[in-house]
Amino acid sequence: VKIGGKEMRSVWFENQHIMMIDQRLLPWEKKILRIATVEDAVEAIRNMSVRGAPAIGATAAYAMALAALTFRGGEWQRHLRERRDLICAARPTAQDLFDGADHVLTKVRGMTPQRAKEAAIQAASQYADAGVEACREIGRHGEALIPGNARILTHCNAGALATVDHGTALAPVRAAVAAGKKVFVFADETRPRLQGANLTAFELSEEGIPHAIIADNAAGYLMVRGEIDICIVGADRIAANGDVANKIGTYEKAVLAKENNIPFYVAAPMSTFDWDCATGKDIPIEERSEDEVLYVTGLGDDGKVRNIRVAPMKSHAKNPAFDVTPARYITGIITPSGVYKPGMLRRSLGHSR
Amino acid sequence: VKIGGKEMRSVWFENQHIMMIDQRLLPWEKKILRIATVEDAVEAIRNMSVRGAPAIGATAAYAMALAALTFRGGEWQRHLRERRDLICAARPTAQDLFDGADHVLTKVRGMTPQRAKEAAIQAASQYADAGVEACREIGRHGEALIPGNARILTHCNAGALATVDHGTALAPVRAAVAAGKKVFVFADETRPRLQGANLTAFELSEEGIPHAIIADNAAGYLMVRGEIDICIVGADRIAANGDVANKIGTYEKAVLAKENNIPFYVAAPMSTFDWDCATGKDIPIEERSEDEVLYVTGLGDDGKVRNIRVAPMKSHAKNPAFDVTPARYITGIITPSGVYKPGMLRRSLGHSR
Repeated sequence: VKIGGKEMRSVWFENQHIMMIDQRLLPWEKKILRIATVEDAVEAIRNMSVRGAPAIGATAAYAMALAALTFRGGEWQRHLRERRDLICAARPTAQDLFDGADHVLTKVRGMTPQRAKEAAIQAASQYADAGVEACREIGRHGEALIPGNARILTHCNAGALATVDHGTALAPVRAAVAAGKKVFVFADETRPRLQGANLTAFELSEEGIPHAIIADNAAGYLMVRGEIDICIVGADRIAANGDVANKIGTYEKAVLAKENNIPFYVAAPMSTFDWDCATGKDIPIEERSEDEVLYVTGLGDDGKVRNIRVAPMKSHAKNPAFDVTPARYITGIITPSGVYKPGMLRRSLGHSR
Repeated sequence: VKIGGKEMRSVWFENQHIMMIDQRLLPWEKKILRIATVEDAVEAIRNMSVRGAPAIGATAAYAMALAALTFRGGEWQRHLRERRDLICAARPTAQDLFDGADHVLTKVRGMTPQRAKEAAIQAASQYADAGVEACREIGRHGEALIPGNARILTHCNAGALATVDHGTALAPVRAAVAAGKKVFVFADETRPRLQGANLTAFELSEEGIPHAIIADNAAGYLMVRGEIDICIVGADRIAANGDVANKIGTYEKAVLAKENNIPFYVAAPMSTFDWDCATGKDIPIEERSEDEVLYVTGLGDDGKVRNIRVAPMKSHAKNPAFDVTPARYITGIITPSGVYKPGMLRRSLGHSR
């Protein structure tokens, strides 16, 4: 991700620590977190310092490296297993979390604790690198779907910040710009946590890609008026039948896109596919604190980052963090190996189980 | 509207002034504005101190009374006409604005300026009273549509604050509660201006009606899960064919309701119908300042009402304030004289033109 003209990753490993951009403070502050323990990594995932399924996956992989590094004796297998379960309990919906943790676990559990320390770091780093490479491939395949002068709608942030770098939904956009196409991105602000307004707009702004933020309510209006040519979003988990769990509101946009005959694409690496989930009904949906709806964070006119209440003190809120978009609303899923109809996924990409 | 246990109207006339609750400050401050000139009334409509089509209509009527009261010589007819046009230019979408201004204009333009002063106040007050009575009738007809234990979705604020009293979309809810039915209201927060979180939740909270605020993104999710039984919204203008202009995002909810076989009702008084608009395509849609999207107002932890920026400084926003819901998504329109299928409106209620 480009920040102040400098390219960096959203999460990386350095001197036995996980390093990450604290995404809760963007676009206001560029603070780097330095994480030494599995517990702190879990907390960073839970409080959304790092978010976005592939970025969470890389963090989980790095957290398993910390698990190996911080082993101080006792039962090695049990230690690994407990750390893995702790990491996987951080958030319930994103499949990449499990994928990242298990990738490292599988590589090192047959090793001695001593050998595993270096191997775990190496496995996690390879996992992160492969994730970035997967995003580039998504960009390559997705770029072909974007016509010149396209007006693209995206929801939440599935950009470089949500991945280790480059993005899923934003990868085709970056590739289109790199190919010389003119594009314009409408970024749903994506309440309650405003990842569209805070993160997607920030990434696009830093890259100089033309864009406008819209209230989530305005997407349908723009579609009816013919002002959206294509929708591209990311995913937190994709079931075997092609149903997609993604940030709350994705389902709404997909229904509206179908109603208005606008192609609706989901971009995701293989780490987001869960072949054990037959349909979206099997995907656990996280409910988060009502405070995410009742409060909004932003920059005060006094230059301080402030958290303000936007609802009466006696009112409560309900805050599902994700929804499931049934496969029938999805035009195609952009993967590192190509673009697939959701119904063809299992045959094309799936494991045989 | 009930505020602190006390019943009051959102707008009224007193000692030659328009009095109104400043809705920009709710739920944080209960400030009453005292308006002496047409210009100030127009500004109060424009800056949304008063908002909601019927409340705007009553304000326009009262503003015409101010026009009569503030006549200081010159051409009387021209004075009235110019004041009327000034009032009607305050905001473009709500039909009630024109209806309220023209109601008073029609009553007094044949009178001498002297006689018109009292008559204008009287006409405006009758207009406001009739509006409240219309809301009660809407409540009576709409109540029959609400089953016991209903979970009701509403968008924006079409309550007592949006009307002079009692509400349009919230009138059936109040009537259902009065009839002893148990109800639960899901209030879309309604970005960008958060009228759902700020005003609808406030009204329900003051009345002790059970409710939860949701991000606009979450409505579709709740519908899919069977947690919404009925949707009721207000309207800013209704075309002759039953297309409805209402707060941005209404169209999205209507499409989602239809997709999930949930009845979607619009509640509106006759002042919101525009028989001169053949279809929704003829309804002008207001674009408001991008700052409504880029900034959010709420209560800081220091107890001050604050306006915070929620987007990068270099990013821009697009802010259509209304959208049009085609009649085919609307189950029925709840009017003071009954509930009608949108396609039957003209025959049932319309003027013959």
